Amino acid sequence: MTQDNLTAVLYKPKDLRLEQTPIPEIDDDEVLLRMDCVGICGSDVHYWQTGACGAFVMHEPMIMGHEASGVVAKTAPARRKDSLQSNALGSSETGLNSIKMRSKLTKSCVPCRYCEFCKSGRYHLCPDMRFCATPPIHGNLARYYKHAADFCYKLPPHVSMEEGALLEPLSVGIHACRRGGVAAGQSVLVLGAGPIGLVTMLAARAMGASKILITDILQSRLDFAKQLGADHTILVTRDASEEQLVQEVRRLLGDSPDVSIDASGAQATVRLALLATKSGGVAVLVGMGSPELTVPLAGSVAREVDIRGIFRYVNEYPIALSMVASGQINVKPLVTHHYTLEETLEAYEVARKGLGIKVMIHVQPRDTNNPQS
Amino acid sequence: MTQDNLTAVLYKPKDLRLEQTPIPEIDDDEVLLRMDCVGICGSDVHYWQTGACGAFVMHEPMIMGHEASGVVAKTAPARRKDSLQSNALGSSETGLNSIKMRSKLTKSCVPCRYCEFCKSGRYHLCPDMRFCATPPIHGNLARYYKHAADFCYKLPPHVSMEEGALLEPLSVGIHACRRGGVAAGQSVLVLGAGPIGLVTMLAARAMGASKILITDILQSRLDFAKQLGADHTILVTRDASEEQLVQEVRRLLGDSPDVSIDASGAQATVRLALLATKSGGVAVLVGMGSPELTVPLAGSVAREVDIRGIFRYVNEYPIALSMVASGQINVKPLVTHHYTLEETLEAYEVARKGLGIKVMIHVQPRDTNNPQS
Amino acid sequence: MTQDNLTAVLYKPKDLRLEQTPIPEIDDDEVLLRMDCVGICGSDVHYWQTGACGAFVMHEPMIMGHEASGVVAKTAPARRKDSLQSNALGSSETGLNSIKMRSKLTKSCVPCRYCEFCKSGRYHLCPDMRFCATPPIHGNLARYYKHAADFCYKLPPHVSMEEGALLEPLSVGIHACRRGGVAAGQSVLVLGAGPIGLVTMLAARAMGASKILITDILQSRLDFAKQLGADHTILVTRDASEEQLVQEVRRLLGDSPDVSIDASGAQATVRLALLATKSGGVAVLVGMGSPELTVPLAGSVAREVDIRGIFRYVNEYPIALSMVASGQINVKPLVTHHYTLEETLEAYEVARKGLGIKVMIHVQPRDTNNPQS
Amino acid sequence: MTQDNLTAVLYKPKDLRLEQTPIPEIDDDEVLLRMDCVGICGSDVHYWQTGACGAFVMHEPMIMGHEASGVVAKTAPARRKDSLQSNALGSSETGLNSIKMRSKLTKSCVPCRYCEFCKSGRYHLCPDMRFCATPPIHGNLARYYKHAADFCYKLPPHVSMEEGALLEPLSVGIHACRRGGVAAGQSVLVLGAGPIGLVTMLAARAMGASKILITDILQSRLDFAKQLGADHTILVTRDASEEQLVQEVRRLLGDSPDVSIDASGAQATVRLALLATKSGGVAVLVGMGSPELTVPLAGSVAREVDIRGIFRYVNEYPIALSMVASGQINVKPLVTHHYTLEETLEAYEVARKGLGIKVMIHVQPRDTNNPQS
Ligand SMILES: NC(=O)c1ccc[n+]([C@@H]2O[C@H](COP(=O)([O-])OP(=O)(O)OC[C@H]3O[C@@H](n4cnc5c(N)ncnc54)[C@H](O)[C@@H]3O)[C@@H](O)[C@H]2O)c1
Ligand SMILES: NC(=O)c1ccc[n+]([C@@H]2O[C@H](COP(=O)([O-])OP(=O)(O)OC[C@H]3O[C@@H](n4cnc5c(N)ncnc54)[C@H](O)[C@@H]3O)[C@@H](O)[C@H]2O)c1
Ligand SMILES: NC(=O)c1ccc[n+]([C@@H]2O[C@H](COP(=O)([O-])OP(=O)(O)OC[C@H]3O[C@@H](n4cnc5c(N)ncnc54)[C@H](O)[C@@H]3O)[C@@H](O)[C@H]2O)c1
Ligand SMILES: NC(=O)c1ccc[n+]([C@@H]2O[C@H](COP(=O)([O-])OP(=O)(O)OC[C@H]3O[C@@H](n4cnc5c(N)ncnc54)[C@H](O)[C@@H]3O)[C@@H](O)[C@H]2O)c1
Ligand SMILES: [Zn+2]
Ligand SMILES: [Zn+2]
Ligand SMILES: [Zn+2]
Ligand SMILES: [Zn+2]
Repeated sequence: MTQDNLTAVLYKPKDLRLEQTPIPEIDDDEVLLRMDCVGICGSDVHYWQTGACGAFVMHEPMIMGHEASGVVAKTAPARRKDSLQSNALGSSETGLNSIKMRSKLTKSCVPCRYCEFCKSGRYHLCPDMRFCATPPIHGNLARYYKHAADFCYKLPPHVSMEEGALLEPLSVGIHACRRGGVAAGQSVLVLGAGPIGLVTMLAARAMGASKILITDILQSRLDFAKQLGADHTILVTRDASEEQLVQEVRRLLGDSPDVSIDASGAQATVRLALLATKSGGVAVLVGMGSPELTVPLAGSVAREVDIRGIFRYVNEYPIALSMVASGQINVKPLVTHHYTLEETLEAYEVARKGLGIKVMIHVQPRDTNNPQS
Repeated sequence: MTQDNLTAVLYKPKDLRLEQTPIPEIDDDEVLLRMDCVGICGSDVHYWQTGACGAFVMHEPMIMGHEASGVVAKTAPARRKDSLQSNALGSSETGLNSIKMRSKLTKSCVPCRYCEFCKSGRYHLCPDMRFCATPPIHGNLARYYKHAADFCYKLPPHVSMEEGALLEPLSVGIHACRRGGVAAGQSVLVLGAGPIGLVTMLAARAMGASKILITDILQSRLDFAKQLGADHTILVTRDASEEQLVQEVRRLLGDSPDVSIDASGAQATVRLALLATKSGGVAVLVGMGSPELTVPLAGSVAREVDIRGIFRYVNEYPIALSMVASGQINVKPLVTHHYTLEETLEAYEVARKGLGIKVMIHVQPRDTNNPQS
Repeated sequence: MTQDNLTAVLYKPKDLRLEQTPIPEIDDDEVLLRMDCVGICGSDVHYWQTGACGAFVMHEPMIMGHEASGVVAKTAPARRKDSLQSNALGSSETGLNSIKMRSKLTKSCVPCRYCEFCKSGRYHLCPDMRFCATPPIHGNLARYYKHAADFCYKLPPHVSMEEGALLEPLSVGIHACRRGGVAAGQSVLVLGAGPIGLVTMLAARAMGASKILITDILQSRLDFAKQLGADHTILVTRDASEEQLVQEVRRLLGDSPDVSIDASGAQATVRLALLATKSGGVAVLVGMGSPELTVPLAGSVAREVDIRGIFRYVNEYPIALSMVASGQINVKPLVTHHYTLEETLEAYEVARKGLGIKVMIHVQPRDTNNPQS
Repeated sequence: MTQDNLTAVLYKPKDLRLEQTPIPEIDDDEVLLRMDCVGICGSDVHYWQTGACGAFVMHEPMIMGHEASGVVAKTAPARRKDSLQSNALGSSETGLNSIKMRSKLTKSCVPCRYCEFCKSGRYHLCPDMRFCATPPIHGNLARYYKHAADFCYKLPPHVSMEEGALLEPLSVGIHACRRGGVAAGQSVLVLGAGPIGLVTMLAARAMGASKILITDILQSRLDFAKQLGADHTILVTRDASEEQLVQEVRRLLGDSPDVSIDASGAQATVRLALLATKSGGVAVLVGMGSPELTVPLAGSVAREVDIRGIFRYVNEYPIALSMVASGQINVKPLVTHHYTLEETLEAYEVARKGLGIKVMIHVQPRDTNNPQS
């Protein structure tokens, strides 16, 4: 095994360095992954720029990266072999350089497995959750990374490494739609057409939403959304009143949306979600905005509009994988920029400027592990 | 049939008059009720004092009263006899003065029966809902009142007319708990120990909540709550910080509550509901406060605390009746004051001052239709 | 208005006659429909052949037909105008011969609106349900038919009358999937590739099922299913043991199906549904077979496989319409045979022989009310 | 630590021996328990008599016992200290002979923690579940027993060791009611008044069921049930037809039950559950009977009566503990017989004969660890 383990380490705000780190030793139940694709997400940029994201604050240098896919480089004699096998971990005997070996997707979280959240199917709320690139846990923007084997998901041959990395944000979109109870025949309002708004839109469609309206303050993002399948768009401008926006939503959808999903975090979009949703419907909050918001809650009470926040995802990685593998969701168009690991700083700079949608870092020479098409 | 139909009519704010009105003619599917007990609720006092309550504004004189029970005085040849019978409407042939005849409880609402809300089991959200003493619909604080027969529920012999009237607020409490998913073994935080907080507490207990903590700013209300079965109480004072209150809740319950139910409407209680609830739990908002509230929504997003408002009740009247009839919920202690119809103004004055808990107006001489105990 | 009201009346088993009947007078809340398309369903054939279907037995002559679409010919001054309008009933002022007028779909059922089932959103279980061509209720295979206005759904211009009629069986498929909790990423086993199995398959796909396996004993039906989008098929032969079939299902799907849906009613398919479904999954029973079945229930207990029957549909017509109108479900290929009203007997004969999939009777000259493509 | 570890080992059918076994060495995450109370359950008797229970067959000698409580004798340096502490494991420092030390309840199951069932909150369906006294896993009818610390639940001071042991069957009853969706105001039919039927009845009541009817073929069990709180009972005799029983159920409850729960496993009770349940209701199957049953499934389809089996319990131990600790469920009357560990064979003999309800074996001198009342 080569000693090269080039790694993107954030030392402090705006101090992101590429340097060699030791290849991690794997523990029972873990696998060593040779990383391939790692996408950049808004939170990565936040940490890079400010050293914090929401309630999470960085105190030590941290390896970046959590939207990722890789290939199994090494497996351990699993303590619980059976359950690992039933997880379809794949060919644990294959060595690092076997290109024919099956690629893997890293699910970037491992909960404690022991608390009441872990036992009741909501492990994403586990207080001991270890989530990649969320302090103090290191991420996977490196040549090598180790991960709990049962939270890795085997990509079938025809799914590419870019798609594998995109399962991470897609899982967020699927979780948002599942929490919102998005169902066949429903109309859905998505507020914000960034990467999260877009994967949410794709998920809603694949779950049967018949009308999807997406909003943004940037026409370019709406154009992208339209191409990706939005039925309607609204360009939100400063001078539009809330009442006008509610009416416009209703006019375009023919009725109030059954479910509204905020994928921006702005107070304006949260408010519109509450106001526009049909009585008895659901407003899902994905966006992470200011800690305090002023919102028209009395209306939600009187019209029984449920408000449900979401935190990442839980049990949605396998769903995301199935949807992509079956072709029901096509995430490929989301990747608008490609960089090598060595170009990481440039990639982060592009992500920071909000150019394009998803910036992908290729830790391996591009298409190394992709299906030969 | 006597011509006496003394009625409490609100002409304009602070102008509540007792006067004779014509006895209503019943339509197909309706029954005429000789009213017996009518409780006073916070919204009644609101209309009386301001002519409005929440989004509802009075433009015409309105008959008051919606927490009520009565006795069947007249029935119509129902268009749909079968369904009315299956609703256990009771002895439709019985005449007005038959004391042996079974008493009825009026459910004070009738939806359109035709819209998507009515068809999908959420008729309380019907835009054409006709709710007693909510403008422009008249209430039932009168000797006679007519109501849709299938929204009347037959009281068994041992249930008193006061209990019948109390099914109305109890239905609100049950709806709050059902919306909150209150379940066996859970811990529940109720914020506000007024009539609604108290019926919510009773409902939560009857659904299996094992620990109930109730808060108020008045010690007298907490004392009442304690007698009624609260496990713990917190007297909220001006100088307690939110963080302290969250800690105190956790200390008393041993953990964060699974469900928090705001029954006050104050911004402070809504905030505490969001902050105190366990991750993945539910904050139910019953209280109707200011149209706009400033709340820590980001925390609800990150901890997936669902926020669910409630609007009155739906299909909960029969549940409330079953629970009272079976003795699982005892609402009797809630009635602290009794008045005759002629003393209506005095009764309203007591309610306005917040003395006691529930003020009951007896339209018939007290105990006329009650079980002979 | 022309006096022609040619009608298909079933007098007794095997005695189906075409004869003139009076055009019905409409009541409050009703509309008169000039019928256009009426599909033939298995139950129609059952009544024709035996005078009965399941527990329903014909005692009087009965007009056939319940999978139908038509055009508004006359409206009544609705008692509840507002709710009818909000139901988007369309141009109530348009006369019979106005071709520009919007077409309608008849939802072939009207419940009592008063019982606990109607009030709790499960009106399909209403004991007073009036369902077309289910004794003693007449169907709509006639030139004119009257129906409750709020149970009619307006077809948008681009949806054809054949599609309108097919919303009826599609609603069954959607109801089956909703009851089964079919969700994104799931694998679904459909047993029986008749019209109901096929619409169920289409519904499951549109709700996000990523793998669908369908079985039948006829290769022709499997071929049709494959063309319509099935991922896998199994031709069930007499010599395959249950254990072999369970293994084959698992092999093709990669794991046990999350949801199995019996659309045949045979004991063999019900058994396979129970045996093949993943632990904790759902077996939906749509097929109506023998009153008594011998099944391996202990396994369902020990593996918590839920068994859920379905009865027609409830609130699914609007969903079916949305899915067809948005192009997410394409039901057009299901219609394999076309006949005129005058050719009804021939049409029934073809349906009886199980040739093709769906036999459609055109009450109007074909394409009269269809979009001009 | 004393070397005495008297243990009840089943060698083969009808060959149950008391003998010394080594005290187990604890692993990471485990605790050693000095056992106190161990109840006898029907499955124990089955293994003793036949060497098998349902699909589980004994191939090696097996230690009996799974309804149990004990006291912490030894703890290991937990790998995941934090999560164990948050589980309120209690005083891990306390030694074996400290009587003041807090007692523990053993939850007799440990799943793999790695499979999809474990991750989605249904760990009771984990294919690698290790359940006490279910081959090939040993039980806890011994002086010492080791168990996963996080599946132990700390009993508060006022809860007795007998109650601790009874949490096991009570969890089954709670799981049955949760799966059945038993809710406030509902009427519930329980079929079979053995220990499981009785705990189910207690759970249903605590969840708000207002009317409970229980059936049995033995009057003595019905008398016991009546004392424990059943509203109605039916003594099922050989000559009562199914139709008569359905009518009798309806007469006593006033309507068909919302939920029926079979706690017998006989074909007759499963059939009655399906036939008697209200349309749209739920029939829960707890009883484990013959592998094959002949049942009227077509009726369940046409009336949408859901059939849900249950397998033990999942996440219900803490609920059971809360309900018992808060006094909402009183399980104490269920224990009708007491024996010492040395009298195990006699105890099993009494259980086999079905005398009384619950036979309890005291591994410690009785009341050793009970609250001093
Ligand atoms: N809850 C979670 O688990 C979770 C997970 C991932 C991301 N997020 C959050 O989701 C949000 C979206 O993520 P992203 O990566 O797509 O971010 P992004 O910034 O790329 O996208 C947000 C979009 O919202 C648009 N927007 C801003 N104001 C608007 C307004 N008033 N109306 C309509 N659109 C408006 C922006 O123009 C932008 O296109 C972020 O707040 C992020 O923190 C939450
Ligand atoms: N959503 C609905 O359908 C519905 C139906 C009925 C009532 N309501 C609303 O429910 C609320 C309660 O009704 P009620 O009749 O019991 O009113 P109430 O005024 O008698 O009771 C409210 C209680 O909250 C207490 N309170 C005020 N500030 C508090 C604080 N900071 N912390 C704790 N307690 C505080 C008050 O002292 C009072 O005891 C009202 O807002 C009412 O409008 C809503
Ligand atoms: N529950 C409801 O509300 C509802 C509504 C409509 C139809 N149905 C029922 O649904 C069922 C299907 O309706 P349909 O119109 O598609 O009927 P159909 O007879 O056209 O289709 C049934 C299919 O099942 C196949 N089949 C028979 N035995 C099989 C086996 N062992 N394995 C696999 N396939 C087998 C047949 O070859 C046939 O293709 C019928 O029983 C009908 O009564 C129920
Ligand atoms: N699914 C699970 O996880 C689970 C867990 C524990 C027990 N069980 C099963 O639950 C069932 C009950 O357990 P138990 O310990 O109470 O058993 P038990 O044998 O003591 O009780 C069964 C009762 O049913 C009565 N009965 C028999 N035929 C009847 C009939 N036709 N009508 C009415 N009552 C009838 C018996 O007289 C007896 O009182 C058993 O089958 C057991 O295997 C299942
Ligand atoms: Zn955890
Ligand atoms: Zn309505
Ligand atoms: Zn009805
Ligand atoms: Zn497992």
